Formats: sequence, C-alpha cells, structure tokens
Amino acid sequence: MVNEEMKQIWKIPEPTLRRLPWYLAFVKLLKGKGETFVSSTQIAKEINVDPSQVAKDLSFVNISGKTRVGYEIDALVNVLEDFLGFTSQHKAFLFGVGSLGAALLQDTGLNQYGLDIVAGFDIRDELAGTNVNGIPVYHINDFPAKQKEFGATIGIITVPVEKAQEVTGQIIHGGIKALWNFTPFRIRVPEHIVVQNTSMYAHLAVMFNRLNSMNH
Amino acid sequence: MVNEEMKQIWKIPEPTLRRLPWYLAFVKLLKGKGETFVSSTQIAKEINVDPSQVAKDLSFVNISGKTRVGYEIDALVNVLEDFLGFTSQHKAFLFGVGSLGAALLQDTGLNQYGLDIVAGFDIRDELAGTNVNGIPVYHINDFPAKQKEFGATIGIITVPVEKAQEVTGQIIHGGIKALWNFTPFRIRVPEHIVVQNTSMYAHLAVMFNRLNSMNH
Repeated sequence: MVNEEMKQIWKIPEPTLRRLPWYLAFVKLLKGKGETFVSSTQIAKEINVDPSQVAKDLSFVNISGKTRVGYEIDALVNVLEDFLGFTSQHKAFLFGVGSLGAALLQDTGLNQYGLDIVAGFDIRDELAGTNVNGIPVYHINDFPAKQKEFGATIGIITVPVEKAQEVTGQIIHGGIKALWNFTPFRIRVPEHIVVQNTSMYAHLAVMFNRLNSMNH
Repeated sequence: MVNEEMKQIWKIPEPTLRRLPWYLAFVKLLKGKGETFVSSTQIAKEINVDPSQVAKDLSFVNISGKTRVGYEIDALVNVLEDFLGFTSQHKAFLFGVGSLGAALLQDTGLNQYGLDIVAGFDIRDELAGTNVNGIPVYHINDFPAKQKEFGATIGIITVPVEKAQEVTGQIIHGGIKALWNFTPFRIRVPEHIVVQNTSMYAHLAVMFNRLNSMNH
C-alpha cells in the first residue's frame, strides 16, 4: 500500500510539475477578479497548452471538475498550492554568500512559496557571524553542526563555478537530499538526490542570440 | 548573403544554446587547471550528454577540433563566450523593484555575463528617485523617456503576477524586443518578441514533490 502510494507520487512527470505553477498563477488571477469557476479549456487557451494536456495534468491533483462549469476556483487554488508544496515550509541552507547568494537571501518572496532559507554558509572567515536580511551566515566548517540543529532538506548552490562540485559533495555528505543549483556548472550527484538547475546564464545566452539574429 | 547568414543564426536550436553554457563552464574550469586541449568525448562525459550531441552543438560555433587532441581550450573559451554574447554588454531595464527585483539589481554577477541593468522601474511613487546598488529606480511613467535615453533591448519582469501581462504590453510598446520573465505567470507576446521564463517557483515545486515522495 505504501509502495503503491510512493509509485503514484513518483509517477508525476516533471513537465506536469513545471506546468502546474503556471495554472495556479492564472487561476489565482481569476480568483482575484472574483471569478468562481474555470474550465480546462480556459486554462489551456491562456497558457497555450492543449486542453487535453491540462485535464491530464490536473488529473494528478486531487480535484474533479464539474461538467460544463469546470473547476471551482477556490478549491483549485487551495488544492494546487497544497499539492505543489507551497503551503508548508521547507528548510533550506544556502551555500556561497556572494553576489547572487546574498541577493537570494534578500528575496523574501521565496518564503511565500514554501522555501524557508534558515542559514547561509561561506568559506570566507569575514562573513561568519554576519547576517543578510536577518538570515545568519556561518563558516562552511559549521555546516555539519548546523545541519544537526536545523535539519535542512534543500541546499541552494551559489558558489563560484570552480567550487560547485566540491560543495555538492559536502552538502550531500551532510544529509541534504535536494539541490537547487544556480551555478552554470553541471553538478554530478548520486541517483537518489534531487537536482533542479536554474540556469540564468543559459537564459541570457538564448536572449542574446535571438536578439543578435534580429539585427543581422 | 545577409539572408543566408540570418537563417544560419536563427537555425541554432534552443536546446543547443542552453547546453553551450554548461560546456563553457566546464572548459573554463579545465583552463583554470592549466589544461590546454579538450575532446568532445571529455565534455560529453562530464556534462552527461551524448558525444555526437556535443560535436553537433559545437558545430554551430566557429571552431574546429583537431583529430586525437580535440579543441584548444583557450580558443574554445573565447569563441564560446563571444558566441553566447557574454563578452558584449546588453542594456536591460528591470520592471518591478520588489523583493526579487531589488535582489536581481544587487547581483553584480549578471554583469559579467553581458547583462547591463541600467535602470529599474516601479509603480510606487516612493521608490522613484531612489537607487539599488547604484542603479537608478524611476516611476514606470518615465519608461518611454528613459527608453529614448538608454535604448534598452531587454526587459526583466519581476512585477506581481497580476501585473505581468499589463507590464508586458507596456514594455513591448516601448520597443523592447526580449523579455526575461521571472513571474510565475505565462505572459503572452507577439511572435517576434523573444521570451525566456525563469520559473523559480516551478523548480521549487519539483523539488518539494520529489522530496515528499521520498518520505512516503
């Protein structure tokens, strides 16, 4: 039974998980406008996805639509937020309090999506004991002790490229199971570790290239 | 001839453009270690991509490898940085100086990748005339005038979700051709406009879901 359930959860495809936040944002917008029902066709049209895909994606979520009227918006918002994990707090450590790292510590918006960054770590002695936006910064050597104290489940990687793989090893050794990699380096991890890459530089490359080709 | 060239550039697939920065980061790392040559097999192994894919991706870039030894590292770094647009500065405006917007203004790292954020805009009167990290913040009403002054080509969108589509319209009307969308909203744009979505919330959703399924 437990195995059945586990299988069920693991089966959710990553593309579905990536689309659901788009749906949520749109449905919340409708909610703000005072709407009460939304159909999968409406969502599909707005997000530019096939309606059958929307219905399929929402079938992973525990909600059912009504013929003709669709999904009840209040319920859909609640169920999606819950399902995506945005309503519970997930403790995270951030590694590398440089320019991007410090910037992320200052973004309180992530907190509203269930990410609770409880500490930052850096190799530079002069940063130990400081804080950014009220979040304490420790020396990387203190990570094992702080991990015992906080029990973070997510590690955010904002170290310089040449340290990315080394820090990845340290984080995993410390028992953290999910890594959010902001470096342009492709970190390598054991199979059971979750990795999400936010490749800001790759996005820049695409924009620059497309812009350039316009000017030719 | 010009048309030929244009076609050539437009033909670069987005997945290739997204992989090239991974290659660049790895090759720069080798450079830092004093290595002089790198083979596509070596890159493939490190990045976990098929070797033939690496060779194909690099065929879009103006560099050729030598049999047996591969690519000269110094040349490859230069050519890739240049090709990806990281060596020239691209002027950008940021819209929405909230928590995430202000955080991005503070990330000087983007500058090293060719993104030059020259101004921020916000709807709140009290922010006009301030600055973040030396970057001036103006009222959104001043955008048309400032666009004449700066001629930005990229618009970074960090406004609240419910303002995303409206601001998108304003930015495009102002003549900006590429949009970097950080909101969880799926913005709609005319065909000739470049859009890149950095969906931090989608990445969080995937991590939370995978972590949850581990605990079941």
